[in-house]
Amino acid sequence: MAPRKLQVAAAGLGRMGKRHAINFLSRTPRAELVAAFSPDPEELQWGKQHLEPYGVVLYNNFDKMIEQTGLEAVVIATATSVHAEEAIKSIEKNLHVLCEKPLSTSVAICREVLEVAKTRPGVKVMCGFSRRFDASYRDAYDKVENGAIGRPSILRSQTCDKHDPSGFFVEYAAWSGGVFVDMTVHDIDLTLMFFGDDIMPKAISAHGIVAVQPGLKRYNDYDNAVGIVEFWNGKIAYYYNSRMMAHGQEDVTEVIGTEGKVSVNLNPQSNLVNVYTPAGITREVPPHYYGRFEMAFVQEANEFTASCLDDTPLPLKLRNAVKAVEIGSWLQEALVSGKQIHFDETGRRVERASL
Amino acid sequence: MAPRKLQVAAAGLGRMGKRHAINFLSRTPRAELVAAFSPDPEELQWGKQHLEPYGVVLYNNFDKMIEQTGLEAVVIATATSVHAEEAIKSIEKNLHVLCEKPLSTSVAICREVLEVAKTRPGVKVMCGFSRRFDASYRDAYDKVENGAIGRPSILRSQTCDKHDPSGFFVEYAAWSGGVFVDMTVHDIDLTLMFFGDDIMPKAISAHGIVAVQPGLKRYNDYDNAVGIVEFWNGKIAYYYNSRMMAHGQEDVTEVIGTEGKVSVNLNPQSNLVNVYTPAGITREVPPHYYGRFEMAFVQEANEFTASCLDDTPLPLKLRNAVKAVEIGSWLQEALVSGKQIHFDETGRRVERASL
Amino acid sequence: MAPRKLQVAAAGLGRMGKRHAINFLSRTPRAELVAAFSPDPEELQWGKQHLEPYGVVLYNNFDKMIEQTGLEAVVIATATSVHAEEAIKSIEKNLHVLCEKPLSTSVAICREVLEVAKTRPGVKVMCGFSRRFDASYRDAYDKVENGAIGRPSILRSQTCDKHDPSGFFVEYAAWSGGVFVDMTVHDIDLTLMFFGDDIMPKAISAHGIVAVQPGLKRYNDYDNAVGIVEFWNGKIAYYYNSRMMAHGQEDVTEVIGTEGKVSVNLNPQSNLVNVYTPAGITREVPPHYYGRFEMAFVQEANEFTASCLDDTPLPLKLRNAVKAVEIGSWLQEALVSGKQIHFDETGRRVERASL
Amino acid sequence: MAPRKLQVAAAGLGRMGKRHAINFLSRTPRAELVAAFSPDPEELQWGKQHLEPYGVVLYNNFDKMIEQTGLEAVVIATATSVHAEEAIKSIEKNLHVLCEKPLSTSVAICREVLEVAKTRPGVKVMCGFSRRFDASYRDAYDKVENGAIGRPSILRSQTCDKHDPSGFFVEYAAWSGGVFVDMTVHDIDLTLMFFGDDIMPKAISAHGIVAVQPGLKRYNDYDNAVGIVEFWNGKIAYYYNSRMMAHGQEDVTEVIGTEGKVSVNLNPQSNLVNVYTPAGITREVPPHYYGRFEMAFVQEANEFTASCLDDTPLPLKLRNAVKAVEIGSWLQEALVSGKQIHFDETGRRVERASL
Repeated sequence: MAPRKLQVAAAGLGRMGKRHAINFLSRTPRAELVAAFSPDPEELQWGKQHLEPYGVVLYNNFDKMIEQTGLEAVVIATATSVHAEEAIKSIEKNLHVLCEKPLSTSVAICREVLEVAKTRPGVKVMCGFSRRFDASYRDAYDKVENGAIGRPSILRSQTCDKHDPSGFFVEYAAWSGGVFVDMTVHDIDLTLMFFGDDIMPKAISAHGIVAVQPGLKRYNDYDNAVGIVEFWNGKIAYYYNSRMMAHGQEDVTEVIGTEGKVSVNLNPQSNLVNVYTPAGITREVPPHYYGRFEMAFVQEANEFTASCLDDTPLPLKLRNAVKAVEIGSWLQEALVSGKQIHFDETGRRVERASL
Repeated sequence: MAPRKLQVAAAGLGRMGKRHAINFLSRTPRAELVAAFSPDPEELQWGKQHLEPYGVVLYNNFDKMIEQTGLEAVVIATATSVHAEEAIKSIEKNLHVLCEKPLSTSVAICREVLEVAKTRPGVKVMCGFSRRFDASYRDAYDKVENGAIGRPSILRSQTCDKHDPSGFFVEYAAWSGGVFVDMTVHDIDLTLMFFGDDIMPKAISAHGIVAVQPGLKRYNDYDNAVGIVEFWNGKIAYYYNSRMMAHGQEDVTEVIGTEGKVSVNLNPQSNLVNVYTPAGITREVPPHYYGRFEMAFVQEANEFTASCLDDTPLPLKLRNAVKAVEIGSWLQEALVSGKQIHFDETGRRVERASL
Repeated sequence: MAPRKLQVAAAGLGRMGKRHAINFLSRTPRAELVAAFSPDPEELQWGKQHLEPYGVVLYNNFDKMIEQTGLEAVVIATATSVHAEEAIKSIEKNLHVLCEKPLSTSVAICREVLEVAKTRPGVKVMCGFSRRFDASYRDAYDKVENGAIGRPSILRSQTCDKHDPSGFFVEYAAWSGGVFVDMTVHDIDLTLMFFGDDIMPKAISAHGIVAVQPGLKRYNDYDNAVGIVEFWNGKIAYYYNSRMMAHGQEDVTEVIGTEGKVSVNLNPQSNLVNVYTPAGITREVPPHYYGRFEMAFVQEANEFTASCLDDTPLPLKLRNAVKAVEIGSWLQEALVSGKQIHFDETGRRVERASL
Repeated sequence: MAPRKLQVAAAGLGRMGKRHAINFLSRTPRAELVAAFSPDPEELQWGKQHLEPYGVVLYNNFDKMIEQTGLEAVVIATATSVHAEEAIKSIEKNLHVLCEKPLSTSVAICREVLEVAKTRPGVKVMCGFSRRFDASYRDAYDKVENGAIGRPSILRSQTCDKHDPSGFFVEYAAWSGGVFVDMTVHDIDLTLMFFGDDIMPKAISAHGIVAVQPGLKRYNDYDNAVGIVEFWNGKIAYYYNSRMMAHGQEDVTEVIGTEGKVSVNLNPQSNLVNVYTPAGITREVPPHYYGRFEMAFVQEANEFTASCLDDTPLPLKLRNAVKAVEIGSWLQEALVSGKQIHFDETGRRVERASL
């Protein structure tokens, strides 16, 4: 008898939603996509063409979808504003949840999801920080764990998008939570990965500029920002985010230890081709994060599925996802207010940490 | 109604056979693996565990397997010595064939398969030269086609394996056809890709050494060899193959044109990680070809499937596979005999080509 | 008649002093080293061996040396604490001065030198920021000037030394002025180069850790520090300095503009060699800054000489050297105090800049 | 008293002659340029401006120049056709000789110089193979000597020039000796360096095309050629030369051993700058060999000078220079004749080496 496959529904069929749906449909051997929801007629039309023929039932109503018989898990890739609500509804129906990051741009709402999840220990709830599933980050992590760099002490990480002149990111800023919550949250998550879950911020600084998207000013947001988080255990992470890259996506991380360093993607590349012309030697760069992280998303779908089916621990703790948003919010606050933020060793906000 | 899936059988469950079986089982959405064959009890045991649960019927007899009702295609990854025979049997049952390279180490037998295939124009027969499906080679090809390097004139290509001290490759040499047929055949196939199917050799030279596997001498084979093929249309390809790499697999290609150059994999890498230690800055290299070409094999399975289902042309002509083995055999002859080989413009062997 | 050569004296024959002396002796065709001073007997002994045979007169008294007849210029590479005093004495004798950075770790003393220099407009006074003379930085600068990256907006720059376990840097911290004054001053100078001399800081943040040199704490210094300088014209520079690199010197700069980016030394290397072993592919890194910048120092000696002989403008303004130390001091203050620093548009310190 | 400086004359003030003259004038501390010769009025005019002011006596007659009192050494960079004659005249006057490569394109004439040199053991005679003085090649050599790659077995080396559409290289082919003598001679010299002086060729093959300079055909020369030299001790070197590079000079060498590999300049670069634009990430490449090897020529001048002054062995044996031309000539013969060349173990030409 064929092994049981996890019965999965996809909520949201936008850019990432489509990808998650396809990944669960045909790149996750132990899962079966059985339902999909979108409030958007065009997205449903896409589903009719690409999902329905394979037996996927389509819905324009989330609540209806999660009542489908036999359903076991939901992958949520709708608008961020409804992530938390849909996650909670799913959890309460004992459905496992893989939710696109972030759960919410509000730390309070993130915590609510966390509280609800705690009440159902049998339900797997994961927030999809895709870089955790990337082969290069994992190799770097293994090397660090094996002592290749001594004690990790400094982390530099950047999330830099190719410049999109369409103006999309201006409107998006209205509800994105700001660049540190929207973009740097990935780098903060990597910080938790490499420095450990229990690190406590001691002081936070951030500065930003509006270089190419003047419209961002009306949302108090920036298109380039730099931030530093100093932790209580003698470690520092510093971040750069930008939506202004000319050449493509450039997500770089360096972890510097007392005896060595690892870097990930310091030299971005689309593939293994170099072109030699009178201009010099050139290699291309992926234009967006999916070009860099496609296989990480596939890996994520497969590992989430395995955890649900085998009732094994998720590779990524939900409270880390909350913590990453929290630190991102502080960085954003430091950025917008122009003030350093300080914490004592118990995590309480203070005027200034004693040195 | 769910779209029809191609009903595929896997012949051979050795190293590559297992991979093909898994790729058709779970990484080829439009295909369904329905049968598998191996003459080897251990391999069948593996199939019992990894394939049977998903409904794949196992056979220890190839002929029986290809009689399974509903079967449409066979992927052949058995020992090279039976490739041709199994391919012909399959074709004669109107089954599409994806055969691991080479069809045979004998040019005459390769041609036989080609002849049989011609009699069944509706049957798709492809020999799996995986590099043709690699994203980097395809990008390089597109750039060349778009004129990025002018007229392609010189091709340098190497297939270099990590040194395997087990002695495996000595015994393997007994029936591998020799290094130019076994290894360089990939580089020759790339030559046909970049220079065009119709190129005609004019002169061939080859030299080799036995550096680390003295046992090879008794099979007239070498562990490092260099060869040059000069073509009639003013192009040259030169090749290096080795089984002596300390660092890992290093398959590199450069295509040099009148106005530029493309390189593929000039700087081999396992992933995007660099490690910085007192020894310097180090990156790792995949230990074997599957580490480099895994996604190319997946792509190959998917494109073969699409051609069968949609009755569209295969991405790779069968007669090129024969031609690659033929040129490889000439290189091997030049290597072993210590004599240059010459051809006239009609392709006939001559004492020496007129200049 | 042979063209006149600039008559140069070298003050200080320590590590850098020796190099300057040799550079003026034999790698600066238009200069002639005629005198050298050191208060240290061992250093003078070195001079006896390497300089005296070529006619260089040795002194153990700076004041005596600068009275030597015919002397035209002094290159100062003594201890930082006497740089300013020796520079002023030289200027007052109408001797051109090339002074190792920094003029002083005290901004007030730096300004004094600047004031004295202003009184003698015919005397050339330059503080040696060697990176300004490096071929790669100059090429990057030319590209930026030619519009290759649009409007420069973000600058990331780091000065990272190979870890020296001898404890030297602990004692050195007593008078180095702190890591931002001692190390990052180079990156600040590059900021003035790429962003322009007139940029005005708006806000400054800095954070540091003591990871491998616990003794630094008693001097209020750090072995790893990160700082951000936000400027009034919508630009940000951020810096990292470290004395903890396992692999060697790693001085990297990136300048990110609205339409592109340039990087300098993102992939440090001793030379053009790669070594392939079972550990992977490795390249070595220069162990110290002179391995990276040797030719820049030679270039500096030659350009300083040309300016003196031809009475042409120096390639580097003295007031920039003061400004770099000033910004470095503010970063150091932000680091040690744990407080952000703010300025208004006129350059005055304020509690917090209005946003 | 100042140490004695070697009194050097420069013969030839063409492209390389000017560089040698300037290097001996101002970048070779232990040498003094005292004379220069050119038969060309324009070159002498350049000498009047750049050499005469520094006391260099100019000549339009080589024989006169070498009679100048006190002269000790001559650097020869005239036309190749007069190298040997001038070298012999100089040796016979007991003048040390640094001669630009090659001594001659004729092996017989090379040998003549060698014979004359043998009669004056106190006279230093060196043929300038600049790559031997390059820091990267030396580092690679040291690593190989220290066992980093096991037993060196395969050497790949290429000398590839940027395409020069002026037609210069067509006329040049009339007397250059052909591409293997003119260009590959450098790679052959490196082969002697890495494989040892005593290697004996066993078989030689070569093939070439005329891709961009059709005029070369009338001189029996090629603009792209590939050659293989198999040696009697189980080693192979293979070479590529080209005058068709779009991007710049690309001189690459790889030495592959039984336990590892070293590469030199696999990724050519003008400097440490990368430019990031919508086209990707680009680095520039030096347009000619002097951009790659400038410091090697300076090193060569200094080491030659030291050998002459200190009467120490030259870093490079003259008979190797002859051997390199000899192997280059055989490759050229194999190329032009379209025939493999074979040798027995004593070095005698044979119809075909026994295997």
